[in-house]
Parts: sequence; structure tokens; C-alpha cells
Amino acid sequence: DRPLTVIAGPCQLESADHAQMIAGRMKEACDKAGAQYVFKASYDKANRTSLSGIRGPGMDEGLKILQSVGQAIDVPVLTDVHNEGQCAPAAQAVDILQIPAFLCRQTDMLLAAGQTGAAVNVKKGQFLAPWEMSNITTKIESTGNTRILLTERGTSFGYNTLVADMRALPQMAQTGYPVVMDATHSVQQPGGKGGSSGGQREFAPVMARAAVAIGVAAVFIETHENPDASPSDGPNMIYLDQMPDLIETLMQFDALAKARPVVI
Amino acid sequence: DRPLTVIAGPCQLESADHAQMIAGRMKEACDKAGAQYVFKASYDKANRTSLSGIRGPGMDEGLKILQSVGQAIDVPVLTDVHNEGQCAPAAQAVDILQIPAFLCRQTDMLLAAGQTGAAVNVKKGQFLAPWEMSNITTKIESTGNTRILLTERGTSFGYNTLVADMRALPQMAQTGYPVVMDATHSVQQPGGKGGSSGGQREFAPVMARAAVAIGVAAVFIETHENPDASPSDGPNMIYLDQMPDLIETLMQFDALAKARPVVI
Amino acid sequence: DRPLTVIAGPCQLESADHAQMIAGRMKEACDKAGAQYVFKASYDKANRTSLSGIRGPGMDEGLKILQSVGQAIDVPVLTDVHNEGQCAPAAQAVDILQIPAFLCRQTDMLLAAGQTGAAVNVKKGQFLAPWEMSNITTKIESTGNTRILLTERGTSFGYNTLVADMRALPQMAQTGYPVVMDATHSVQQPGGKGGSSGGQREFAPVMARAAVAIGVAAVFIETHENPDASPSDGPNMIYLDQMPDLIETLMQFDALAKARPVVI
Amino acid sequence: DRPLTVIAGPCQLESADHAQMIAGRMKEACDKAGAQYVFKASYDKANRTSLSGIRGPGMDEGLKILQSVGQAIDVPVLTDVHNEGQCAPAAQAVDILQIPAFLCRQTDMLLAAGQTGAAVNVKKGQFLAPWEMSNITTKIESTGNTRILLTERGTSFGYNTLVADMRALPQMAQTGYPVVMDATHSVQQPGGKGGSSGGQREFAPVMARAAVAIGVAAVFIETHENPDASPSDGPNMIYLDQMPDLIETLMQFDALAKARPVVI
Repeated sequence: DRPLTVIAGPCQLESADHAQMIAGRMKEACDKAGAQYVFKASYDKANRTSLSGIRGPGMDEGLKILQSVGQAIDVPVLTDVHNEGQCAPAAQAVDILQIPAFLCRQTDMLLAAGQTGAAVNVKKGQFLAPWEMSNITTKIESTGNTRILLTERGTSFGYNTLVADMRALPQMAQTGYPVVMDATHSVQQPGGKGGSSGGQREFAPVMARAAVAIGVAAVFIETHENPDASPSDGPNMIYLDQMPDLIETLMQFDALAKARPVVI
Repeated sequence: DRPLTVIAGPCQLESADHAQMIAGRMKEACDKAGAQYVFKASYDKANRTSLSGIRGPGMDEGLKILQSVGQAIDVPVLTDVHNEGQCAPAAQAVDILQIPAFLCRQTDMLLAAGQTGAAVNVKKGQFLAPWEMSNITTKIESTGNTRILLTERGTSFGYNTLVADMRALPQMAQTGYPVVMDATHSVQQPGGKGGSSGGQREFAPVMARAAVAIGVAAVFIETHENPDASPSDGPNMIYLDQMPDLIETLMQFDALAKARPVVI
Repeated sequence: DRPLTVIAGPCQLESADHAQMIAGRMKEACDKAGAQYVFKASYDKANRTSLSGIRGPGMDEGLKILQSVGQAIDVPVLTDVHNEGQCAPAAQAVDILQIPAFLCRQTDMLLAAGQTGAAVNVKKGQFLAPWEMSNITTKIESTGNTRILLTERGTSFGYNTLVADMRALPQMAQTGYPVVMDATHSVQQPGGKGGSSGGQREFAPVMARAAVAIGVAAVFIETHENPDASPSDGPNMIYLDQMPDLIETLMQFDALAKARPVVI
Repeated sequence: DRPLTVIAGPCQLESADHAQMIAGRMKEACDKAGAQYVFKASYDKANRTSLSGIRGPGMDEGLKILQSVGQAIDVPVLTDVHNEGQCAPAAQAVDILQIPAFLCRQTDMLLAAGQTGAAVNVKKGQFLAPWEMSNITTKIESTGNTRILLTERGTSFGYNTLVADMRALPQMAQTGYPVVMDATHSVQQPGGKGGSSGGQREFAPVMARAAVAIGVAAVFIETHENPDASPSDGPNMIYLDQMPDLIETLMQFDALAKARPVVI
């Protein structure tokens, strides 16, 4: 089992310079700690809590930025798509297409994403049991594409709250596909601030450590140099300058976890 | 407050004849009981649990059938749309566009639906608190369209289970928009049969009665002459021949509820 | 099926005069509306959120007051017991022993309560599925006592929140025992105010109406002439002067519900 | 921060020989791995799902066995108490009194346990938020006793299911008291087999690893040489012969976690 991959970046694209700055800092930290790094950012936040939430640069401009980051920093890039039509253009620009959690059962999107041949990371819906993910992988596999990743990002737990069920990680791994822990969205408090989501940034490293100790292929972490000034998901993003330490810690847990794998 | 509206029909369109048969039987029952009737059916089930689930006739064929039913039986028709592009054509054929629960926060869909000028029924996501619906109505209102309905269809409650929180009905009514109780989907057991959803058909009338007693504008009920042979949602649909009795009962509760409205 | 019984009173006993005042007012309202009335109050709140919460007059003094109320107003009386030893003395003074929700699986208490021969009302634990109540009735039945009532008072739903699943009412009725809807505790927000529980008083009538429309033997409602000044459960108790109207409304729904019983 | 403590033993006492066998095997494994060991067993299962569930030897006989195990194997012993009266005698025989989760808010029990001067381990109720535990520690502290431990054993998540929220561990640690992860009860499926609880034994090590990686004072694990033949909790207990390996793994995670403590 290969060392941990770190999928990280700002929640949404702000500018090419900003994206490259974060990708560069993360690449350096991951290289130093021995982690594989994937840059992540969204060109459009298509389901903001409220209409007034900033959505990002849009697909055309955003894909250009993402491609430039991949080339400039020499890292694989992941971005999320929001309908069938976005899959093909996004696959031209990035390496991994991500299916948002709310959309994880939309058959046409899964097929369109699969057909690009790009790797597809599906976030488990907040309304879905881990064992239901095999129905989703079957949809993608029907396109001949088996480059699939499955991500835990929390499950609905009462109102405005998510809970991350650690059993979901080995359960999803039973599909045979790599499992990703989304440490920052699983501590989101959806709609918790009325017109936007709250979050418990302080618990994101807790989720990451727990998941890595169980054994996962990757962690997904949103980060920003100044989360509270970022256009979205500020309350749950981790400060960029805390990432090197966190990654170093996670790599130590990862080495231990992979030397003694969980068997269920 | 006007008498109860009944939104009812098969989960998915099977044929024009079948749709008209159900619409006709329902229209007759509603007329007799003094209820307003809206025919409901889907031309595409875009998020079936598994790939092998039957999806329906598709948009072009389906909208023709829906339009023909509306004209033949002289009833308003509701159908659900699944991306931005489907809103305008669907609004040509039917009276009410429905936003599926998983898609209830997709800003572009809400805007596209609103821009058609058709009435828009938004199902509250299984992951959403009732008080978050005002963020959604604001999105639609931004198009100048205020013909909005809000539907309770159950909230995630552990895995493979929904619970219908009756507080959600008066809470959503605080937006000022009519509230609909979806009595059949709220007793669904999502993914509960592995490759498809289970359901507790026997509790659908229970949910409908409870909601009508509290006071709602409409109930949403899927029905079929032979639910267990239907292509989708069989486990939670109500037998067509039980509908006249149920509607008559609901109308009695409705009269009482509206004579003594709940004030919160 | 007999008309609705109303079990109502203050959360905790304050004084004999206060208890008689409430019992008298409630008796009058129930008589007028055609409801059977049972007075309810607690002599000890044994599981207050915090140590500083007022607990009541204690068992000896409290049972005297309860007995006096029953005699003075000529109504059956219900009170909750908190360990095995309290069952026998309480059964001397009151008609119905109530098992608190947290204690609903404590075998020895259920047996001790059953052995008194008094009627036993078990509140379903916030952690229990409705279909598990048959394990509890079996425990009581083993004493030869089948005077059992089962009460829905809400189920844990995330943190600091309960949800009342309306399916629980017909499910518990399948045991063959009368089912009670606790309209005020099911809108409690346990621990929601830090050192005490919050509540959503405004939704208590909503819960009561929904339950009565489905068909229940009784509703359980805590009431106080000035809830915000009461020693416990203020946020969810209903104002005493609103009770006559509420009961009259409920009786109308009850008549309708029992004329058209739910069959599951 | 001291190395991990392992609280382990059979769910219920079967005989002195059986208890000593398990305590001896566990002591040896813990000594070898550098863990502190505490023997755990119950003399009475006071809240079995059904009446026919075996309850154990009872308090008098049970406390004798527990005391003998402590002396024979030279280990501290923990047992759970079920009402006020059991606290004093139990504190004569064992080192740590445990308050069962259902009873965690019963004020009189908490006070009686605190007054013994013994250490008191409170299991967080399945219906309680982690931040509510400070109300409970205040109750115990009022007796002058601050030898308190707090245990996470899962939270209600829909029906017949628990979820272990990893945030609860650092949240409870904010009380200043040692936090224990109950790895076997948090994978229980309460009432999941109708007349008894089910469980997912395979996930207990997953929970333990996750918790230890976050940083806890102790893990609580029920174990049996033949869980499926044990009188209670078989479905979630771990095979005794798998414990040495598990403990060794946990100690490695513990060393890493305590070298890099989580700060929230």
C-alpha cells in the first residue's frame, strides 16, 4: 500500500497567482513529508447555501487557471463538475473529476464523468450509507472506467450537523477502490450560520488523524492562508501555515497504519 | 385557506394510456371529495439507486405524454426536472416544475426553473433543515417568480431511513409559501434493498393524515394500480383503488384543520 | 375505541394548592370537551440536566400531595418513579406509575412497577426503536400485570434535538396496548441551553394534533399557568389558559380519527 | 501524558475461574505491550433488551468474584452499578465504579458513586451531546470526588444503530478529565436482533485505532475467548486471542499520538 496522498487546496479558485501560491506551498510540504500531492480547487460553487454566496471564476476561466497550476507546479489537479456537460471540458484540463456529494446518485453525470477516462472521485452523499457506494461504482464501471476514488465527507446527523462514521472507511474500501477522507467538509455545519455554513476547523485534524490511523489512500483538506477572509468554507478550512506540521504528523500515522492494516 | 390539493400519480410514466387511466381515476376521486387535483409523473428517474433501474421514456416522449394527459383529463400537471436545460421545455408542457430533493440547492437549476415563470415545487433535501428553505426561495424569487411550493419528503435518520419531522410543515409555512407533504417518499427506505429503495407503504396514509391535521396546502402521493409491478418506488406507492377512501378521509381532516389553524 | 384521554399537569409538584388549581382547571376543560382526564405531576426530577436544577418536594411529601389532588378533584393521578423501591409506595398514592424514558429498559424497575398491580406507563427511550417496546411489555407482563401504556416522547436526532416519528404510534399500537403521545417532551431540546433543556412550546400542539389524527388513546401535555416561571421544563410547557381550546380541537380530531381508524 | 490504559474483560461475570483466566491473559498482554491494565466485568446486566437475557451472578456473589480477581491477578477492577444502593458495597470490592450510559443523568446515583471516594467512570448516554458531560462532572465534583473518567460509547443514529463521533473525544477532554473510548459498545446495534442487540465486532479495532490516534487516556474493550457463546454482547466482543496483537498495535499509535497531541 502506497503512502498517503494529500488532496488539498482552497475551496474555490480566487486567481491564478493565489492558486499557484497554495499549490507551491503544499507541494513543498508534501515533498518534504513524503506524501503524494494533488491540487484541489473549484471553479464554481454551484450549490452555495444562499444566492449571495460568491461562486468563483466560472468554468472557462477556471479550467485555464487549474491547467496552468498543474503545469507550473507539476502536480495532478482535481476539480468538481456540476453537470454532464462540464465533464469533457474539465477532463481536458485536470486529472481527477470530482462528483459533489449532493450529485452522487445522478446517473448521467456519473456516466459522463466515467466516459472521459479521467479519474473520478465520488463524494458519498450526506444521505447515503457507505454500503450504497457499490451501486455508484457500478454506474461508473459501466463506462469501462475503473479509475475511481470514494470520499467520506460526513453524514447528516440531525439538522445543521454532520457526523463522520469511521466505519465508512473500511466499508467503502470493500469496493476495492481507494478511499479518501475529507477532513474539512466532514466538520462543516451545513447552513449552520443561516445564510451560510458554519464549521469546526479545529476538528479537521482530528478527523484526518483518525482516518489515517484506520488506513486510507488519501486525505482531502481545504486550506487557505486566511480562511476567514476566503469566499467560501472559511469556517472549516485549515490555515495554510499549519499544513506542513499536520502532513508530517499524518505521514507518521500513515506509515504505522499501513504496516499494520485493518482487516474487516 | 383553500381546500387541500392532491398531487398524485405514478412514480414514473409508463405509457400515455396508463397515465391517463390514473389521472382519470384520481380526478374523479378528487372531484367527488372536493379536492383540487394535480397529476404527477416523471419522464426520467435520473438518480436511481442502481444503473439497472428503469428510468422512463425520457424527456421528449415524456413531455408529450404529460401534456396530453393535462389536456385529455383537464388537470394541471407536475413533473420533475434534472438539469438547467430541461426547465424551459418542461415548462412548455406542464404547469409545475419540481426540483428533486438531492438537487434543491443547485443554484442554476433553481434560477432556470424560476425563469420559466411556471410554478416551482422544491422538495426539501434529506440533508436540509426546514429553516434553510428560505435560502432556496430567495434564489427563485430573484428571477421574479414567486409561484413557489415547498415539499417535505423526509430527512435522513441514520442509514437507509428517513423520518418526517412534523415541525417542518409550519416552519416551512413561515416562508409564506404553500407547503406540501410528500406522504409516499417520506416512508421510503433509501437504498434499503441493496440495489433499490425499500418503503413502508402502510405508513403513507399515516403521514398524510398527520400533515393534513396540522394544516398543509397539498399532499403528494404516488399511486399505482399494482405498485409491486411498477418500475420504481413500488414499496412505498399506494394502491390506486385505496385512493378514493384516503382522499375522502383527508378532506375531512382538512376541513377541520383549516377551521382551526395552527398558529406558531 | 374510547374518546381521547388527556394526561396533563405541571412538570413538577410545587404545592398542594398549585396542583389542585391546575387539576381543577384541567378537569373542567376536559369535562366540557368530553375527554377523560388524568392529573400528572412529578414529586422528584431525578435526572435534571444540572445539579442546580430544582428537584421537587421529594417522594413522601409529594405522594401525599398527589393523593390529595386525586381525592379533592376526583381524578386518576399519574406520577413517575425512579427506582424499584419507589414503586410500591407510589402505587399506594396514585393510579398510574410512569417509567421515565432513560429508565425504560431497567428490568428491575419494570418488574417492581408491574408487581404493584397499578397501571404502568412506559415512556419509550430516546434511544429506542418503536418495535423494541414489545421487549419491555414482555417484562411487565411477566408480573401478571397487563395494565400497560406506551408513550412516544421523541427520539434522539443529532445533538440536543429530538424528533417525533409518527410511525411509532401505530407501530407501538401493534403491541395491543394503548399508545400515548407526549406532546410537550417531544419538542424538548435536551441540554439545549447548556445547564438546562430548551424547548419549542409552539410545536407541542402541532405534535398533539398530528398524533390524534393518526389515532392515539391519550395525549400527555405538561402545562403551567406561567411556564417561564416554573421550576422545570418551562420552555416546552403549554400555558394553562390555552389548554381548553387545544383540548376542544383535539377532541374534534379524535372523533374523526376514531371514526376512520388507521389500519397498518 | 501517560501511556494508554486498557480496560478489558468479559461483558458479564461467568465464574471466578473464567474471570481470572481472562484477567490473567489480558494482564500478560498489557504488561508485554507497556499498557496499564484494568479488569472489567459486570455482576448484573440490569437492562437487557429482553427479560430472557441472562443477567449474571448478582451483586453479592459478583463482588466477591471481582475482588478475588483483583487480588489474584493484582490489577485494578472496574464494575458497573445500577442504583444508589449498590455504590457503597461495590466500592468496597472494586477500584472504579462505572455509571451505565442510560443512567448517566440520574443525579442520586452520581452523588452516591461520588461519595464512595472510588474513581467513577461515566458512560456518555446515547442521547447526550459531548458538551453536556460537564453537567455530569459537576454533579460528581459536588461530593468532593474528582476521580472521574468519561467514556464515549456511541450516540443514537437512527434506529438500532449507534455512531461514534470522534469529535466527542477532544470535546469531553475539555472537562480536564481522562477520556475513555469504548470500542466494543460503540459498534453495538441496540435491539438489532429483535430480542437482543447485534454488533459489528469487526469494527471495534477500527474505533479503537481512530480514538487512540486522536489521543485518549484509555480504551474499553469487551473480550471473550468465545464471544458467540457468551451470555451477552457476543456480537460485539473481540476474541481474546486477538487482543495481544490489537494492544500492541494500539500502543504504537498511542506513543505517536502522545508525542504529537491534538490541540483544539
